[in-house]
Amino acid sequence: MSDPDGTAGEDAPALTIDADRFRRSFEAYSEIGATENDGLHRLALSDADATARDRFVDDLQALDLAVTIDEMGNVFGRREGTDPDADPVLIGSHLDSQPRGGRYDGQLGVLVALETLRALDDHGIETTRPVEIVNWTNEEGSRFENPMLGSGVFTDNVDLEEAYDLRDGDGVRFVDELERIGYRGETSCEPRSIHAFLELHVEQGPTLEERGTPVGIVEGVFGMAWLEATIEGRADHAGPTPMHARSDALAAAAAAIDEIEALPGRLSEDAVATVGRLDVEPNSVNVIPSRAEFTIDVRSYDDATVEAAIDRASAEVEAASDRVGADASVSELWRIPHTEFSSRVCDAAATAAEAVDADAERVVSGAGHDAKYLNDVTDAAMLFVPSADGITHNEAEFTPWDDCVAGARTFAEATRRLAA
Amino acid sequence: MSDPDGTAGEDAPALTIDADRFRRSFEAYSEIGATENDGLHRLALSDADATARDRFVDDLQALDLAVTIDEMGNVFGRREGTDPDADPVLIGSHLDSQPRGGRYDGQLGVLVALETLRALDDHGIETTRPVEIVNWTNEEGSRFENPMLGSGVFTDNVDLEEAYDLRDGDGVRFVDELERIGYRGETSCEPRSIHAFLELHVEQGPTLEERGTPVGIVEGVFGMAWLEATIEGRADHAGPTPMHARSDALAAAAAAIDEIEALPGRLSEDAVATVGRLDVEPNSVNVIPSRAEFTIDVRSYDDATVEAAIDRASAEVEAASDRVGADASVSELWRIPHTEFSSRVCDAAATAAEAVDADAERVVSGAGHDAKYLNDVTDAAMLFVPSADGITHNEAEFTPWDDCVAGARTFAEATRRLAA
Repeated sequence: MSDPDGTAGEDAPALTIDADRFRRSFEAYSEIGATENDGLHRLALSDADATARDRFVDDLQALDLAVTIDEMGNVFGRREGTDPDADPVLIGSHLDSQPRGGRYDGQLGVLVALETLRALDDHGIETTRPVEIVNWTNEEGSRFENPMLGSGVFTDNVDLEEAYDLRDGDGVRFVDELERIGYRGETSCEPRSIHAFLELHVEQGPTLEERGTPVGIVEGVFGMAWLEATIEGRADHAGPTPMHARSDALAAAAAAIDEIEALPGRLSEDAVATVGRLDVEPNSVNVIPSRAEFTIDVRSYDDATVEAAIDRASAEVEAASDRVGADASVSELWRIPHTEFSSRVCDAAATAAEAVDADAERVVSGAGHDAKYLNDVTDAAMLFVPSADGITHNEAEFTPWDDCVAGARTFAEATRRLAA
Repeated sequence: MSDPDGTAGEDAPALTIDADRFRRSFEAYSEIGATENDGLHRLALSDADATARDRFVDDLQALDLAVTIDEMGNVFGRREGTDPDADPVLIGSHLDSQPRGGRYDGQLGVLVALETLRALDDHGIETTRPVEIVNWTNEEGSRFENPMLGSGVFTDNVDLEEAYDLRDGDGVRFVDELERIGYRGETSCEPRSIHAFLELHVEQGPTLEERGTPVGIVEGVFGMAWLEATIEGRADHAGPTPMHARSDALAAAAAAIDEIEALPGRLSEDAVATVGRLDVEPNSVNVIPSRAEFTIDVRSYDDATVEAAIDRASAEVEAASDRVGADASVSELWRIPHTEFSSRVCDAAATAAEAVDADAERVVSGAGHDAKYLNDVTDAAMLFVPSADGITHNEAEFTPWDDCVAGARTFAEATRRLAA
């Protein structure tokens, strides 16, 4: 391997991980919140999340890392470098899961980062820069409906007090749960100087598998928006109310959802639109629904396409509601433009993949990740490993173990290079 | 008034009710389970239902009626007639309500029957036949999803053990709740000899109001069926999963519901179809729905039309699911053919309306009622009073008080004639 710039770190042999230890860790963490179908049910700030966090802190302390917990519950472990003034390389992902989700989403990225730190210790490698590992709080946004919450506050994208005030479906406040599980730390959650952020994650789509490539180097993330549509009709008895006399909120919602599903195909090659949540009132078999509330998730790498999808989806909700004489409103819950990741970090990952002899190619992410927010305050990028059949947010989520190892080797070596 | 058959009862002056007392009772019962919007939330076997039942029993005892509670919690109060061998005339309705429903549905019919018994006492009238008042258990079928449950068991349409085993949305068994509120009686719930059953109810549709008629004499009830459709797709991440790679259970459900809403117009003038309940899993904003389960309520006075609606609705669910590669199943929860009520009882009601000078006309009911089941074991019919704007199963349900009184006067006189 030649290195014209001649830094010692880049000349060194690629960092070797212990694939067996990595697998044992993965199996052990997967038992925390395990479902009977080999999935994970480890919602943010639940008891299972607390157990996983406790184990994570134990593992960091076993490596003699300096552990800090910030006021959002983000957990950091710092391994010092030789230069006391150098900004750290930050690596990690999240330990929370979707409801009855998979074992790879989030957790794999944290454990790849943990294995990287263990491997640095194995070989007694001193890096110039500190390396910090992180577990971000509430990445999923399924319990507290604002995804990437811990990294959102860390990067000033989300206000701390707003995050604290979020409530789950049972009305429980985020900050109260954070306190309850003992992870409301003292350290301020705010931007600080970081040299680079690298996150490994499962792709959650079919592209890498279709192409037969074990490692994706993620150059950017789709722009995305979450809308909430509310349709207010009128409850009436399902028997004696003729069809013409109805104002059926669910009938309007169904018509709108049917149109929204067809929108992406009319807008662009990459656009997607999803109605994931729908709640009906009073939700009784023989009562015409008075109210339907549903979310619309729209995404594309092109921000103008997202804008157009928002406009057209809103228009479909209005039109369908008008037809049955119902009132409609559509509000924006959340929206972010597309992201272009750091070419410096992507290049380091590509070089690392070559060094460890892993097949890799450049891809774009349809999913939001903590790295998306981190890119606002530092140079960030991601590595993907394939998701079998593109299945994710599902107990059947699966990545072949060889691909996990290829990703971990690339990740460890990229981290070493970024910190060298 | 001439009466060629010359029975003393029919020659007597029409029975006079105390409209003020009737109103006071209505106001008092309306406070039990009242909502802030003047509706009623008094689900079957809830604490509010228990309170209403306790008051009802007190009111029956105050009239010196013989009170019996059967093993389904149906409450009867018997006023003896002069002929100890004569079958009773049974009158009444139900005290349970829809979730956040109205004050008239069910309760009005029980209180009209109560006022009838009080009026018979006021005037010291001895009837030949006994008159029995009844409050039927769980007519609504919204908490325990089998409507007209108490009268269903009473008429052998529903098996007692099946009724006992029904569970509400929280998994609570019917019989356990019946026991808890102290209304699991000793008396066997089974058919017995009854001379006639008469029930007053709000129309729950717009027809009487549109025609300006205060009293409807109900000649029959629509045939109806409840179906449950289940669509099983696959959960995937809403971002990286291209539209073509999805098996979205809610997208299929929405397409099917949109078609089902259009079915009645293609089938007949009177048919209606309603999707009242829809539950989505995992119901998370950024997860493609894996499962959608919904009910379909179809009705018509023509049983063949109901049959055709079932077939076509099932076909729409299948077709929409096939298009997204999801599995679909449709099962029948409940089904009853159309009913023709007793012409003898209808004629008695028509004669009574004339005697009290109330405008009345013959109508058909789109809603199921306890009288529908009673017609299997005796001669039954119903009286309707108008529902403003046809609104029902809604806190805004309203019947002008003058129409309630016109209905009550007709009802009391019809009861006197049937029992005379």
